[in-house]
Amino acid sequence: MTTAPLLQALRGAAPERQPVWFMRQAGRSLPEYRAARRGTAMLDACLTPSLAAELTLQPVRRHSVDAAIFFSDIVVPLRLAGVGVEIRPGVGPVMDRPYDSAWAIAELVSHRLDDDALAPIREAVRLTVDGLAAFPGAALIGFAGAPFTLAAYLVEGRPSRDHLAARRLMKSDPAAWNALLSWTAELSGAFLRAQVEAGAAATQLFDSWVGSLCLADYAEHVAPHSARALAKVADLGAPAIHFGTGTGHLLAAMRDVLDAAGVACGAVGVDWRTPLDEARRMVGGGVALQGNIDPALLGAPWAVLEAHVRDVVARGRSGSGGYVVNLGHGVPPETDPDVLTRVVELVHSL
Amino acid sequence: MTTAPLLQALRGAAPERQPVWFMRQAGRSLPEYRAARRGTAMLDACLTPSLAAELTLQPVRRHSVDAAIFFSDIVVPLRLAGVGVEIRPGVGPVMDRPYDSAWAIAELVSHRLDDDALAPIREAVRLTVDGLAAFPGAALIGFAGAPFTLAAYLVEGRPSRDHLAARRLMKSDPAAWNALLSWTAELSGAFLRAQVEAGAAATQLFDSWVGSLCLADYAEHVAPHSARALAKVADLGAPAIHFGTGTGHLLAAMRDVLDAAGVACGAVGVDWRTPLDEARRMVGGGVALQGNIDPALLGAPWAVLEAHVRDVVARGRSGSGGYVVNLGHGVPPETDPDVLTRVVELVHSL
Repeated sequence: MTTAPLLQALRGAAPERQPVWFMRQAGRSLPEYRAARRGTAMLDACLTPSLAAELTLQPVRRHSVDAAIFFSDIVVPLRLAGVGVEIRPGVGPVMDRPYDSAWAIAELVSHRLDDDALAPIREAVRLTVDGLAAFPGAALIGFAGAPFTLAAYLVEGRPSRDHLAARRLMKSDPAAWNALLSWTAELSGAFLRAQVEAGAAATQLFDSWVGSLCLADYAEHVAPHSARALAKVADLGAPAIHFGTGTGHLLAAMRDVLDAAGVACGAVGVDWRTPLDEARRMVGGGVALQGNIDPALLGAPWAVLEAHVRDVVARGRSGSGGYVVNLGHGVPPETDPDVLTRVVELVHSL
Repeated sequence: MTTAPLLQALRGAAPERQPVWFMRQAGRSLPEYRAARRGTAMLDACLTPSLAAELTLQPVRRHSVDAAIFFSDIVVPLRLAGVGVEIRPGVGPVMDRPYDSAWAIAELVSHRLDDDALAPIREAVRLTVDGLAAFPGAALIGFAGAPFTLAAYLVEGRPSRDHLAARRLMKSDPAAWNALLSWTAELSGAFLRAQVEAGAAATQLFDSWVGSLCLADYAEHVAPHSARALAKVADLGAPAIHFGTGTGHLLAAMRDVLDAAGVACGAVGVDWRTPLDEARRMVGGGVALQGNIDPALLGAPWAVLEAHVRDVVARGRSGSGGYVVNLGHGVPPETDPDVLTRVVELVHSL
């Protein structure tokens, strides 16, 4: 293959085979992942180039997916900028303090993400691209958390279900919110740019928690920052994928972010709640879609999962515009890896 | 007042004043609640009639809200049916085991909720109604978890973010799922019926987690059971409110549940993500709306909260059909109770 199927689909061309990959495909569901990670803290793994490259490549090796997603974490750019953050097993990212006031944010945004600090990221990407040479047609996707989702962790200081503190700050102190999101947008953009410059062929901006916002708040307080993050890498020509969960009401606005960023082509990610033919009606034909297999069904009997995958793929291919098969959210840790391999085989046969 | 403003609004009549109450208005935000609950486990509090009545009445006494919501918990009917369940502080409801297979569900549904077991619920409702006599115009709303949300706890065995196990069972073993939801629907219906028979003037069916489903799964695997739960009490004539979060894509289907149940009149609850004028377009004019103040803004400066409340109320009153002011989800525990009182005063002045 001269062009990776993933890139063909993102450009709206007919791919040589139906591309498929899985969010969180590098993770606890793989025994080789657990073996490689043993004794290494998450953020240390992300910042050890040889290990990050190995973890990125494992699912390509095992499942023959059409894309590797750069192994990282949403808070890695914070660590690289010198912000106090750790990932507590079973909890998630925990900040040294909540950044929930104008003065805390003023202190936060004095941190800069130096280009030098991105050296281990660039090195890991280069090693991954070298490793991917053995898998023709597999493309590397750069990874970054979106400005809102990064901010939600910063304001709350830790994971939360409802992101109350983020919405409170957004409405109570729009100037502080704007300063915070401008800073996280810089971070997201710089993190993606380092990956594309080092060889990533596409990017994905993960706005995991943005579905907690109403459309008006998203459009006013978040979308311009997401667009600026993606605009920082738009001149490099790599397609961009924009993903969140619970975003049925935001899909058209997320497409607008891709347009506003000036990215050449891209995809909107769709979780399992919105059928892809309906998502297509919402976003129109000028953008690709990615999704939306329900991760819950990875543990269902094969006949149930197969029928679901066939239905999702048929809807994804209906209408105009490209389509990339993926889950609607991440691989659950207890997933049998053989099931993922079988899904890839099925998709490639369609 | 001869008729409570809440009931007027639910019937689509112009209320004498704009009714307002808060989900989770009886809870940790109130010092008198923390004092009354001290040393008593949650489920014990729910099953001690005098205490349950006191906790139900506290917010009416303090905030002059237009409704008391019966103090209970989603899993109380399970406890009354003899199912092993406890509420772990900081975790939530934990079952003695996950009910995630056909044989586990067969065992579960052999449990019956005897009418005798509901005696403490009836007694608590009677005491509450007696206490409410001192607050003319305040109506008591009966409380029950909806069949899906009850099932989500049962299948998972504990709280979960994504409800993967529930969706997996629903699609993998529709017969077991149907048996489970038929049983939880019986429980929800019987729990509500006991409350209305003892004096509750309306009901609210809480389907907190149903927003995790796509519309097709909701319509096929959940809605008929929710309708059957509400149908068990429809002949008593009490208006019904049907609430969930993240349900922007389900609002019309939730209205259909009220219709299918044959309830005389009712409301669809709307969280903070869908503006009420948009929700009105979705559900039409034949039903009331309830919501959708963003709980995140209860901690914002008063000017911000006031502007938000005024906007929500204006949208809620636009178009035809009744409207009940509420939050889009529960009162956050750290809320200043004086802010809630001030919101009630503001709403009553509008």
